[in-house]
Amino acid sequence: MFFKVKTTEEVLDLIRGFSRCEEVTLPIDQALDLYLSREIASPENLPGFYRSSMDGYAVKAKDTFGATESLPTFLEVAGEVAMGKIPGISGDRGKAIGISTGGMLPEGTDGVVMLEYCHSLDKNTIEVSRAISPLENVISPGDDFKENATVFEAGQRMRPQDIGLLAGLGVSGVSVYRRPRIAIISTGDEIVPAGESPEPGQVRDINSYTLSAFCRQEGAEPTIMGLCRDDFSQLKNLMNESLEFADSVWVSGGSSVGARDMTLKVMESFDDMELLVHGISISPGKPTIIAKIGNRTVFGLPGHAASAMVIAEVFLKEYISRLLGNRSQDHGLNRSIKAEMSRNIESKSGRDDFIRVRIEKEGEKLLAVPVFGKSGLISTLVDAHGLVRIDRNSEGVYRGTIVDVLLFKS
Amino acid sequence: MFFKVKTTEEVLDLIRGFSRCEEVTLPIDQALDLYLSREIASPENLPGFYRSSMDGYAVKAKDTFGATESLPTFLEVAGEVAMGKIPGISGDRGKAIGISTGGMLPEGTDGVVMLEYCHSLDKNTIEVSRAISPLENVISPGDDFKENATVFEAGQRMRPQDIGLLAGLGVSGVSVYRRPRIAIISTGDEIVPAGESPEPGQVRDINSYTLSAFCRQEGAEPTIMGLCRDDFSQLKNLMNESLEFADSVWVSGGSSVGARDMTLKVMESFDDMELLVHGISISPGKPTIIAKIGNRTVFGLPGHAASAMVIAEVFLKEYISRLLGNRSQDHGLNRSIKAEMSRNIESKSGRDDFIRVRIEKEGEKLLAVPVFGKSGLISTLVDAHGLVRIDRNSEGVYRGTIVDVLLFKS
Repeated sequence: MFFKVKTTEEVLDLIRGFSRCEEVTLPIDQALDLYLSREIASPENLPGFYRSSMDGYAVKAKDTFGATESLPTFLEVAGEVAMGKIPGISGDRGKAIGISTGGMLPEGTDGVVMLEYCHSLDKNTIEVSRAISPLENVISPGDDFKENATVFEAGQRMRPQDIGLLAGLGVSGVSVYRRPRIAIISTGDEIVPAGESPEPGQVRDINSYTLSAFCRQEGAEPTIMGLCRDDFSQLKNLMNESLEFADSVWVSGGSSVGARDMTLKVMESFDDMELLVHGISISPGKPTIIAKIGNRTVFGLPGHAASAMVIAEVFLKEYISRLLGNRSQDHGLNRSIKAEMSRNIESKSGRDDFIRVRIEKEGEKLLAVPVFGKSGLISTLVDAHGLVRIDRNSEGVYRGTIVDVLLFKS
Repeated sequence: MFFKVKTTEEVLDLIRGFSRCEEVTLPIDQALDLYLSREIASPENLPGFYRSSMDGYAVKAKDTFGATESLPTFLEVAGEVAMGKIPGISGDRGKAIGISTGGMLPEGTDGVVMLEYCHSLDKNTIEVSRAISPLENVISPGDDFKENATVFEAGQRMRPQDIGLLAGLGVSGVSVYRRPRIAIISTGDEIVPAGESPEPGQVRDINSYTLSAFCRQEGAEPTIMGLCRDDFSQLKNLMNESLEFADSVWVSGGSSVGARDMTLKVMESFDDMELLVHGISISPGKPTIIAKIGNRTVFGLPGHAASAMVIAEVFLKEYISRLLGNRSQDHGLNRSIKAEMSRNIESKSGRDDFIRVRIEKEGEKLLAVPVFGKSGLISTLVDAHGLVRIDRNSEGVYRGTIVDVLLFKS
């Protein structure tokens, strides 16, 4: 039965091989956090004209050659450039034209002397105390981007400044991979809706809330399909409904053996089902199932909320990221920090243990403090800031060891 | 005029003193990423009953005392606990009742023997090869949370697992601080809407896009008020309109001297205006203005998109975070990483320089590689992964120095 038990890396490799969602074209202001499906080339030169990058005077650079504080050059002020307009004046030898940052250089000028090196002698004359080179304090057409130059490679994730740049280039829509749609089903005879009062023996639905919030946090679109008894045909119907529209179905719990077997049986009842993973050698979360039904992916998750969240952090985050179109192999930059283990932790070899830890500061040092408690407690997860992985080839970690803490988003 | 020039720390301290947005009560599934305005106490014991944390047999612990592999104890199987129900059977001496994880312990039993230590001899008898203590593999009422115990302190940011826990406790609504509402105005005679083709001398609006995406990224609700000429009454009208509904108005650029003065003049025309900051000793972004008008905050931002984004990363991120109700003084955990400077950087003392850097990997080492380019270029910002601050008391940073890189969200 456990012939498909896989290691953490095997499961991550499998997930990294999954296809991205389809391309869609969206207005740029709806593309935040999404990944480009195509390279974007600049439709034009940016900027489109010679632009001042300083407040000062537009001049012929040659006219300033040799100018110093002790031997300044005198120039005639011939006018001022109005913002947003083609300058009405052109610059001749010996002339200076007032210009603001962003103003267009008048014909005949080729540089800008910063205001602080110009001293007004009278209304029509300035003293320039510094020489400039041609194009000094000037942005030339195409300095930011030349027409047809690559602005973004495919795979770039859209940040606020990236969206701004597209606006600046006149690009109004972009091709991105759409957000994955996830259908969430909570199973178990003992589960009642969160709004109800459980009878003895019953508990409220937690996973629908945790997993749907997790989806939103990671950029997917969750649909809560509701609760399901430990009943073959009810689960089959809900799965069928889910597969109609969702890229993935996440079936969590029930926590009982019967409920876990039920999920597998329902999956197996689909003709085109391919079982990819039946058990992962990690703790918590070992009884996780991953299967393909057609081109949809079905995850059978542990019923216990804390275990389901560990699987979400370790695998489902990666899953959503792949479907969104992330091509990077490196996810550590923002997510993990180094901290010092506050005590010895034993671990069974043969499985990766994911230990919940709090981060505490001790002077300049960050400590990873394990959050203990029986495995069935939910409070252990809300007390934690992240997870420390103890590799299956190790028998534990000593106090004082520097470990990587996979941080929960907060 | 520059009597209100402040340092980075002075401005951050000022911002940290601003009031939070009002409290609102939201359904828990709308509270993701928001901060609790009140402590939450548990309305009941969680769990509400003695619950098995393992698959196995519920027994009287005393019956297993002394049991070992070589000398097992024999127990009579008296039935099985159905999930979600009060067990119909009670456990007497010498009896064992099958139970799944999450099942309710039958009366008379006080522990669960894990399945792996039980061996079925026939339909009605098991052999138990291990002793358990009372309450072993059992979660008692209130083990997770006792009635009236504090579940979350005020100020906690709601993560997916936190929302799940509230669902589990039957808490359907929470008091949080509402999202700040930000009105965004782009000024400057040279700016045209992003959808238009600029004439020579004109550029497209970038800041409305950059700043509104930034607001959404940080959890605020932006409203784009549109473009504004360098015209006193047009700006005054737009400000009035904005102050009607927004907690804060962000006026960016124009980049010309005249436009910058205009923003200040319009602010000063409000009777209840209090100028807090007129210039910050940083680069880029020096000409930033912060004022209170009544209980609203108005920011006058640099017109140049790259400078405006630096101010956003350094100050407006903190501003939104405070209004959202973040009480923590420590924002470094997720946002900054250590990297090694790839080359010498000079810096003028007397101002904090924020250098745009790319992060590159060299073996195991992270390098912070400065992104150069004229200050007026937008491409410098999209090429960068974050900012390195060079303190105003320093004249630069040597190659090989380990620096903190303030990461852009990606």
